[in-house]
Amino acid sequence: MFKLNKILSKDTFELCELKLCKVLLMNDQNYPWLILVPKIEGLSEFHLVPSEHQGDLMDDITLASNVLQRVSSPKKLNVAALGNVVSQLHIHIVARFENDATWPGPVWGQIPAEPYPSKVACTLIETLKSEFSSI
Amino acid sequence: MFKLNKILSKDTFELCELKLCKVLLMNDQNYPWLILVPKIEGLSEFHLVPSEHQGDLMDDITLASNVLQRVSSPKKLNVAALGNVVSQLHIHIVARFENDATWPGPVWGQIPAEPYPSKVACTLIETLKSEFSSI
Repeated sequence: MFKLNKILSKDTFELCELKLCKVLLMNDQNYPWLILVPKIEGLSEFHLVPSEHQGDLMDDITLASNVLQRVSSPKKLNVAALGNVVSQLHIHIVARFENDATWPGPVWGQIPAEPYPSKVACTLIETLKSEFSSI
Repeated sequence: MFKLNKILSKDTFELCELKLCKVLLMNDQNYPWLILVPKIEGLSEFHLVPSEHQGDLMDDITLASNVLQRVSSPKKLNVAALGNVVSQLHIHIVARFENDATWPGPVWGQIPAEPYPSKVACTLIETLKSEFSSI
């Protein structure tokens, strides 16, 4: 049975569930940053998503990208499945800006995460949930 | 009409073409590293791949990942569409090892690329081409 990895759980807020994936908001106000986790136990590589679920995965990535684009109007979206530290397959969708902390470099392993103040987190979570339910 | 970005062209060797993508080998012996470039002019975001081509993109990523897995037997594959520097949509597929130069960090923007010696490049290119044609 699928169970969300503990590190992913600790570092994020859960937003909603899509066709295949759980949608998380990374608790790091350096970047608007979603993480999609396919609800399939034991999956660790992007190319090992079973073929019958690949369409749903693409749909989920597209939908989450559109939500992040609408909410944050970034210069660029970075989409990545890395998993060198947490092996459970998870897809990062990160909104990037030319004035963000590590542009144009990657976001991983560069600077410490900066947790949202509670009120900011609550407002952003509500905004994102509302976008996901309306799109 | 689709034209490969000049920076991507300069930094890579062309290997073959799949259903949707041109397949390139990054000229950096720090990591076995493929790049897929969808042959659609003006495309810059992963989620903007037209829905009628998304299946082909997933097939190309799966096939290229399987080839890289067979040829290099990595600990992990990193799959990413970033594009902060080169906006033409390109998907990195990087074979990662626990003893590689930047494990478990990302490969982008960390250390300079280390071009392959010509003979090594030729042998690897032949091996990869042979795998792509046999798979």
